[in-house]
Amino acid sequence: MLGDPFVVMNIIGLLAFAIVGSLKGVEADLDLLGVVILGVITALGGGTLRDLLVQRVPNSLQSSTDMSLALFGVGIALIGVWYVEDLVNHPLVTGSDAVGLATFATTGALVGHSAGVSPFGIAILAMVTGVGGGSMADLVRGRIPFVLVEDFYATCALAGGVVFWFSVWIGATTQSGAFGCAATTLMMRLLAIHRGWHLPKMSRVQSL
Amino acid sequence: MLGDPFVVMNIIGLLAFAIVGSLKGVEADLDLLGVVILGVITALGGGTLRDLLVQRVPNSLQSSTDMSLALFGVGIALIGVWYVEDLVNHPLVTGSDAVGLATFATTGALVGHSAGVSPFGIAILAMVTGVGGGSMADLVRGRIPFVLVEDFYATCALAGGVVFWFSVWIGATTQSGAFGCAATTLMMRLLAIHRGWHLPKMSRVQSL
Amino acid sequence: MLGDPFVVMNIIGLLAFAIVGSLKGVEADLDLLGVVILGVITALGGGTLRDLLVQRVPNSLQSSTDMSLALFGVGIALIGVWYVEDLVNHPLVTGSDAVGLATFATTGALVGHSAGVSPFGIAILAMVTGVGGGSMADLVRGRIPFVLVEDFYATCALAGGVVFWFSVWIGATTQSGAFGCAATTLMMRLLAIHRGWHLPKMSRVQSL
Repeated sequence: MLGDPFVVMNIIGLLAFAIVGSLKGVEADLDLLGVVILGVITALGGGTLRDLLVQRVPNSLQSSTDMSLALFGVGIALIGVWYVEDLVNHPLVTGSDAVGLATFATTGALVGHSAGVSPFGIAILAMVTGVGGGSMADLVRGRIPFVLVEDFYATCALAGGVVFWFSVWIGATTQSGAFGCAATTLMMRLLAIHRGWHLPKMSRVQSL
Repeated sequence: MLGDPFVVMNIIGLLAFAIVGSLKGVEADLDLLGVVILGVITALGGGTLRDLLVQRVPNSLQSSTDMSLALFGVGIALIGVWYVEDLVNHPLVTGSDAVGLATFATTGALVGHSAGVSPFGIAILAMVTGVGGGSMADLVRGRIPFVLVEDFYATCALAGGVVFWFSVWIGATTQSGAFGCAATTLMMRLLAIHRGWHLPKMSRVQSL
Repeated sequence: MLGDPFVVMNIIGLLAFAIVGSLKGVEADLDLLGVVILGVITALGGGTLRDLLVQRVPNSLQSSTDMSLALFGVGIALIGVWYVEDLVNHPLVTGSDAVGLATFATTGALVGHSAGVSPFGIAILAMVTGVGGGSMADLVRGRIPFVLVEDFYATCALAGGVVFWFSVWIGATTQSGAFGCAATTLMMRLLAIHRGWHLPKMSRVQSL
């Protein structure tokens, strides 16, 4: 639905998400099928949730391309883990993961826009598409979704969705809005990684 | 879709659910976004599940009103927690939460009825709409959904759904059925809080 | 949608899944409603997920038959647990559970085929329908889904889905494909139980 740069970004993102997800499965000591499932859920889960929320048959079930890329990413992880120490924190993986977050947030905003949801709905779909897959993978292996505890991750996708909505609201084309969303999400995420940004915690509260 | 009392009850319910949910996030030591997400999931999750089950684009994505109310509830919680000790058990919060359970159960029964589901389907949609948000929030923070272990909570919504179905079955208007559902759920829940009702546990079983 | 043997197999499967699920609830020391909910989720969860993924109102909400069977299975479990030691590992239960896995995988493949999804989509729907209910029940009680850690279970449904797709691709009728899917899943699962098959784990990996 978008031009060339997004096709390339989508490929990078799917591979990165599948790598990160399947490494979570390796870490949790799952069997081979479990590792593949975690990789696939991480890569395709966000887009599947997005499609379900706007009542479309999920793209992940209709096209074989995304699934093939996800399985290829799992394959890279299963080989790479033997050769690269701490693969999950390799700059190539974290950088590609940021590209994936930006791409998926953008598809979420675009799908929400064409489904006619509210401004809140666009921001939520951007966030859900970007972090849904990783969160589902965390839930499935019995962890609190990393986006709720770890760092400045979901916030970037949310900000991208807001930028998209605002761009379109002031009259920009959806194409421009999409580029604004992707650029915002990617820049914020790379800065957050680089500078170690965190949101404030609420734990100063005394009693509950 | 209903008259004035339900509009007011819906507002009370959304606020109460958002307060309870975001306090769970504070307790779990999530960051600011995590607290907001838990509050929003608790307030809007049940209705979103309800809409997905009958194949409607979720109201939470289409209208900005419910999301605004949920965010307002989160704001109340974040301020209130500094001034009120044990806010989550304050009678105003537990009472409003019971109102929310009754309202959401009623919308679940109504949506199920207009989608033409079975009697079981109506009871399930009443229960899922009433307890879905809180259960999702519990799952997300790594707890067993409170409705499965804690007390006489989901049972009230289920009973409300049965009352709705029975009322309509014997020829009452959906309006009357809705009032019967709301009244049943609210009364049962308030009684359960007041008297400390519990369902029997199965743990007398010897070996598994 | 299929002939007589599948009707009988579906009944056996629903009962077995409800028994296994509610016994998990008993083991987790849930209250009565919690036990019923786990039994019902295990029996009907996979089919509900399948229907949501292809945008149909879930059969579990539209028909009362499946829900009645699930509740009947829960009843059997609650009585049987007093008379049969280690009911969950009784050959009659594990055998019926294998029949259920085969039946549900087949309905998943059939529904995916008639919705026009990709070959991957058919395999995924077969697997999700077969293992979705048990996995949801595990998530709800705070466990990693058994299919990710335990044994040769989801793999059988996945293989059944592949056999279905391949049969139809080489020109067989969907009826034949369905029988191939059910037979493959059932045989593989019974062999896996009998011989204690496992998939390899990835834990030989050194550092993450």
